[in-house]
Amino acid sequence: MGNCLVAQSGGPTAVINASLAGVIRANQLNPAYGRVFGGIHGIEGVLEDKLYDLTELSGREIDLLKQTPSSALGTCRYKLKRGNDTDFARLVEVMDLHDIDVMFYIGGNDSMDTVDALSEWAEAHGVTKRFVGIPKTVDNDLVPVDHCPGFPSAAKLACQVTHATSLDYDAYTRPEVFVLETMGRDAGWLAASCCVSGDVDLLVLPEVDFDREAFLAQVQKKMDEKGSCYIVVSEGAHYADGTYISAGDTADDGFAHAVLGGAALTLKQMIVDAGIAPRGVVQDLSRAARSSNFAQSLVDVTEAYELGMSAHMRSADGEFTGKVVGVRRGVGPDGGYNAEYFAGPASEFANFVKEFPAEWVLPDYQGITDEALAYFRPLIEGEPKLIYEGGLPATIEPFNLR
Amino acid sequence: MGNCLVAQSGGPTAVINASLAGVIRANQLNPAYGRVFGGIHGIEGVLEDKLYDLTELSGREIDLLKQTPSSALGTCRYKLKRGNDTDFARLVEVMDLHDIDVMFYIGGNDSMDTVDALSEWAEAHGVTKRFVGIPKTVDNDLVPVDHCPGFPSAAKLACQVTHATSLDYDAYTRPEVFVLETMGRDAGWLAASCCVSGDVDLLVLPEVDFDREAFLAQVQKKMDEKGSCYIVVSEGAHYADGTYISAGDTADDGFAHAVLGGAALTLKQMIVDAGIAPRGVVQDLSRAARSSNFAQSLVDVTEAYELGMSAHMRSADGEFTGKVVGVRRGVGPDGGYNAEYFAGPASEFANFVKEFPAEWVLPDYQGITDEALAYFRPLIEGEPKLIYEGGLPATIEPFNLR
Repeated sequence: MGNCLVAQSGGPTAVINASLAGVIRANQLNPAYGRVFGGIHGIEGVLEDKLYDLTELSGREIDLLKQTPSSALGTCRYKLKRGNDTDFARLVEVMDLHDIDVMFYIGGNDSMDTVDALSEWAEAHGVTKRFVGIPKTVDNDLVPVDHCPGFPSAAKLACQVTHATSLDYDAYTRPEVFVLETMGRDAGWLAASCCVSGDVDLLVLPEVDFDREAFLAQVQKKMDEKGSCYIVVSEGAHYADGTYISAGDTADDGFAHAVLGGAALTLKQMIVDAGIAPRGVVQDLSRAARSSNFAQSLVDVTEAYELGMSAHMRSADGEFTGKVVGVRRGVGPDGGYNAEYFAGPASEFANFVKEFPAEWVLPDYQGITDEALAYFRPLIEGEPKLIYEGGLPATIEPFNLR
Repeated sequence: MGNCLVAQSGGPTAVINASLAGVIRANQLNPAYGRVFGGIHGIEGVLEDKLYDLTELSGREIDLLKQTPSSALGTCRYKLKRGNDTDFARLVEVMDLHDIDVMFYIGGNDSMDTVDALSEWAEAHGVTKRFVGIPKTVDNDLVPVDHCPGFPSAAKLACQVTHATSLDYDAYTRPEVFVLETMGRDAGWLAASCCVSGDVDLLVLPEVDFDREAFLAQVQKKMDEKGSCYIVVSEGAHYADGTYISAGDTADDGFAHAVLGGAALTLKQMIVDAGIAPRGVVQDLSRAARSSNFAQSLVDVTEAYELGMSAHMRSADGEFTGKVVGVRRGVGPDGGYNAEYFAGPASEFANFVKEFPAEWVLPDYQGITDEALAYFRPLIEGEPKLIYEGGLPATIEPFNLR
């Protein structure tokens, strides 16, 4: 009996470890693989033969893993490039060394491309190793799934912070604007989801080229109408020429992506400089949104866990490679939301960006349509019963630090 | 039977409405006052005769009020100044207009000073109105209480975000620093409380004059030792000459307090400029920490509610004026934490700042002592069972917006 390998890549989420837990637990329920190895720091650590044996995790550890945010195996931003035969051969060498037949890779667009590239390479070189993807990303920008694990919990936290800070803002009489910034480089899903709280006056998305004058006119209008204006902006919001609103820090994150942040501060200053409000308050959700365990969506953590199980179970089929598992939106007997699991070619998940639909965006920064709200609402439903220790949600010690 | 008035002032918290709920509920259990009026936007609205009748709030509304963050009556930063006879006389006029005998004021240092000044003024002018204070502040800087309602919930959220973002940070291999900024103008209680999570490498408090070289040496040491450094800084941290680390935005908040923010960004840049790490991640907790309902401490919400009840019940004594209710730390039969309620002169609460004790601070920015940890731990214990609607904690519509 061969072994399997699981690794995590890209930005952490609140439930990426639930997918890891799903793979481990599935193998305990049906030991299709002798050992379940975790790759430390994604492909980067695997190439260095850094593995951790996860096979015998206890039920308690599985429960804690499900409620531990971030990537318990550690993550990386190293991308295996097509044509890099040295890396590919080295990976197969490490897999051979530990009798590993199948590698599960939990990640976003880039990782799904890696799954695609590896399976292609293996087939072309007569290598029988198989590669399976499990999606995650707070950005929610993967096709062809309904949504990506990690996003619903980030959206739930974003909505909670939106409502709480909006109440805080509304308690004052002084004229000022409030600007909340969320992650979202190319797609505004997370920023748009804040509208579910019902508190957003103006929404600035990467999908709509930013028009300074039109935006300021709307801020002025809200201030005139009700003396306040609660704004949500996605970090990736930009002008028509592609210049980010947050033109400041453009350091590289090692993946040829610009590092963003500062859009909210820029908008606040723009409004103050235009004389529309004498001051403003800025809140940047940043990392706090993507890796919270205290605001997991039950729908999200359940689906992430079950996607891990689904990947493991489907991999019993010796032909199952270059595939990614995902969730489609079905309709339950009560007419409500129902998750339907499927698997599709990794090539369909990789290197595409699913933008927030243009037809769901209201004009003049006024937020999103009812159809969009109906899309978001079921995703943030439910709260898992967390295990607390000392007043804080208990977590498992990350494997990459052991 | 006369009436009473409740108002809220200063920065909102996660449980200031629980104190309001306590006053209202106490009067339902024992209707010592005919009506319970809420003053809209603190003393500012009261002077304009803006009141809202809270007497008949339903049990469901009381429950929702307890879990609604921010100030449901609206708040203000207007301070009644000693010697301002016009304002004092106007307040009494409004109270007379509504047959109000007692005013409960929920707030921080400044509000407790207002309670003191009003009761003094009333006595000096032969006015029989009475004034009672109920403390709140996320800054936790009031004497002579063990702690201030609102602080434990802010600390609980701060600890949760610290741990979650620390796990997120630890998932990476790339060399960078992480800097979390908390509120805390003059006292570093909230920043210090983050150490309970066990993740803080270096702590920068307002109580210790900032020494750039000594601090950078410690960052270098942590980076050398383990390749990472998680830093928490209080917004009010400053150099020996009083200059804030965040020398940037110094707009006034209307209360002659400098508006802070930006200490984390400044520290990050300082570290990068010194060549200790090529980059850093900044997270500003800001408003999200003080007004969260999704991370209320059960100890905190219970105490805030009971302080509201205690203030109402004690006010049955016609001599009870110029007093503030508070919590002292007692020892329960199991040797653990036990809240003890008391009342003291408002003058003892007003205009003093209880700094984080110097003897609880470890040298070289290394965090806090075991004694300090033992102080914080019981305060963040327990999670109230929140009522959720649509995946979000339900809240009551603020009275100032009705």
